[in-house]
Amino acid sequence: MNIETEKARLFCVNLFQAYGFSKSESETITDVLIRADLYGIESHGIHRLSRYHDEITSGQVDVKAKIDTVHETKISACLEANKAMGQLASVQAMNLAIQKARNTGCGMVTVRNSNHYGIASYYSEMASDQDLIGVCMTNTEAICVPTFGSEAMTGTNAIALAMPAEPFHFSYDASTTVVPRGKLEVYRKNGQPLPEHWALDANGHPCTDAAVVVDNIIAKAGGGITPLGGMGTLNGGHKGYGLSIIVDLFSAVISGGLTSNHVNRKPGQTGICHYFMAIDYGIFGDKNSIKAGMTKFLQELRDSKKAEGQTRIYTHGEKSSQLMAERKNGSIPVNEKTLEEMKNIAKSLKIPEQFII
Amino acid sequence: MNIETEKARLFCVNLFQAYGFSKSESETITDVLIRADLYGIESHGIHRLSRYHDEITSGQVDVKAKIDTVHETKISACLEANKAMGQLASVQAMNLAIQKARNTGCGMVTVRNSNHYGIASYYSEMASDQDLIGVCMTNTEAICVPTFGSEAMTGTNAIALAMPAEPFHFSYDASTTVVPRGKLEVYRKNGQPLPEHWALDANGHPCTDAAVVVDNIIAKAGGGITPLGGMGTLNGGHKGYGLSIIVDLFSAVISGGLTSNHVNRKPGQTGICHYFMAIDYGIFGDKNSIKAGMTKFLQELRDSKKAEGQTRIYTHGEKSSQLMAERKNGSIPVNEKTLEEMKNIAKSLKIPEQFII
Repeated sequence: MNIETEKARLFCVNLFQAYGFSKSESETITDVLIRADLYGIESHGIHRLSRYHDEITSGQVDVKAKIDTVHETKISACLEANKAMGQLASVQAMNLAIQKARNTGCGMVTVRNSNHYGIASYYSEMASDQDLIGVCMTNTEAICVPTFGSEAMTGTNAIALAMPAEPFHFSYDASTTVVPRGKLEVYRKNGQPLPEHWALDANGHPCTDAAVVVDNIIAKAGGGITPLGGMGTLNGGHKGYGLSIIVDLFSAVISGGLTSNHVNRKPGQTGICHYFMAIDYGIFGDKNSIKAGMTKFLQELRDSKKAEGQTRIYTHGEKSSQLMAERKNGSIPVNEKTLEEMKNIAKSLKIPEQFII
Repeated sequence: MNIETEKARLFCVNLFQAYGFSKSESETITDVLIRADLYGIESHGIHRLSRYHDEITSGQVDVKAKIDTVHETKISACLEANKAMGQLASVQAMNLAIQKARNTGCGMVTVRNSNHYGIASYYSEMASDQDLIGVCMTNTEAICVPTFGSEAMTGTNAIALAMPAEPFHFSYDASTTVVPRGKLEVYRKNGQPLPEHWALDANGHPCTDAAVVVDNIIAKAGGGITPLGGMGTLNGGHKGYGLSIIVDLFSAVISGGLTSNHVNRKPGQTGICHYFMAIDYGIFGDKNSIKAGMTKFLQELRDSKKAEGQTRIYTHGEKSSQLMAERKNGSIPVNEKTLEEMKNIAKSLKIPEQFII
């Protein structure tokens, strides 16, 4: 099923206002959410409304939170989000990083005690849309098992980086796990066995039963997903493990917040932490030349020799920007279950159903 | 076989002086080289002398190179290395980044037209030894095949990051390929088949014959190593591919230098590019608290539940720092072939052989 993009947007804005967010806040949260659907990352789009509903109504998200600046320099800041909606803390933080980058060449803002922020590339692209390099990271509750371990200790811990280029920006956005948790949920739903070495059981042995792994993660009963590179060190699992530590360093450690292994352990608080950086790449030389260099390199990658049987090499951000161009003034796909959940939420908040159907 | 560490050091200092480097320059290059052997990364230690010998005597490395500052701000610089020895350009660049971080909180220095710089963690740890976060990256000649490709386009493209902690620093240093080229050479030497999906033949099909892959890389005949995450997208190969692009962005694109696919294509010039960053993490809050937070998180990782059959979970930098403590005032291992090569180089440069044996 498809919903007109503008209808979905209007529904979400009404929904978030019904929770008590201001109109402008509701528009911000909605813009991040809808962007995920425009990019084809459905797990982070309106599909997620029911989880946000639970987080807002249970008090994990504080609708009235004011974000405090704990520490600040010309190039940096540390923000205490006070359980704000992740999207609101994050847009504020990246805007601050961008402003500092405009003034000094570089801005770095770390955020503690926030919540799920949606797709990371939304924020990194806020910077690249203003002709800056944008970086962002976030921790999550623990789902990833360290090399040689059997207990999830780090999160999905995605890294995003966007750099201006023509005809579309380079926009990297990927978890430091072999796959995000949502991928396991798809395998579970389809009753398929997981590829080997994606996940471990509570004893640290490979496990191909998605239901067992997901249930264990939710119950914090041991096991979890392997780092990028898989189990052990043979295919570089220790590299993915290290990258996940780096994400916790920049988001949680330098902000004085909770590392992934402590996230979502207390009722009424997730404690998720983020990191945002904007760099004006003009601090290294002529911006036009540098951007042209990036454009050339990406084109060379796309033009390089294909593997037999393959017709196309992509660069990061290509698929999402093409999909967005199609969907922006059109519609976004939504499955039956999500639609049903949206209707129930609308009912509970007394929002007229015709906003969505 | 083992050589006393101090003897190996003295030999290298004499050797580099014989090429025409000053005593101080020779000591710097030697310190980077020997550190690799102390850390157990033999591929980047004195084993590499014969490759450096070829690069110096063929003119790829210019012994008399002066490094120019092409662009500079309070927080950044772009250096033209003019074919300098990689270690010399890199120590200078990281020192500059450190100095800028001391003044402003952050220093970023990009370097073009350099040469192989040895182990990346040497430079990131220059920063962490001064209580800063250190980051460095370098491109190399192309060995890594993009997702869906059949032609090597990006390099080993290692990322290193060091952050102070007790009782030893967190020090990440890893290629963005599934394995570095040296690993394939070990399999070739032992006549072992490669694990599946480490490498591709010239048509982009999986290839387990190390000799075929290494020869193809050297001859630039197609194929190469897969990105971290392996072939295709199933296990996240597109993530490793994207990380390798990020390394080329920071080292080559923003410096106006050669991206990996253009490195080592002209006689007499490699064109390798690097990137160095130092961050005074005090710009985010109290340094003692932040460092204590990192120490605690790393300890929690090491203390977390082990997989059945495993007795230990490591954090990055642990093994190398322990090995260095053992070897620093002792000896470093060297194989027959390397020793033979050292003797031949000594002879050709008229350095008394007793310096090494």
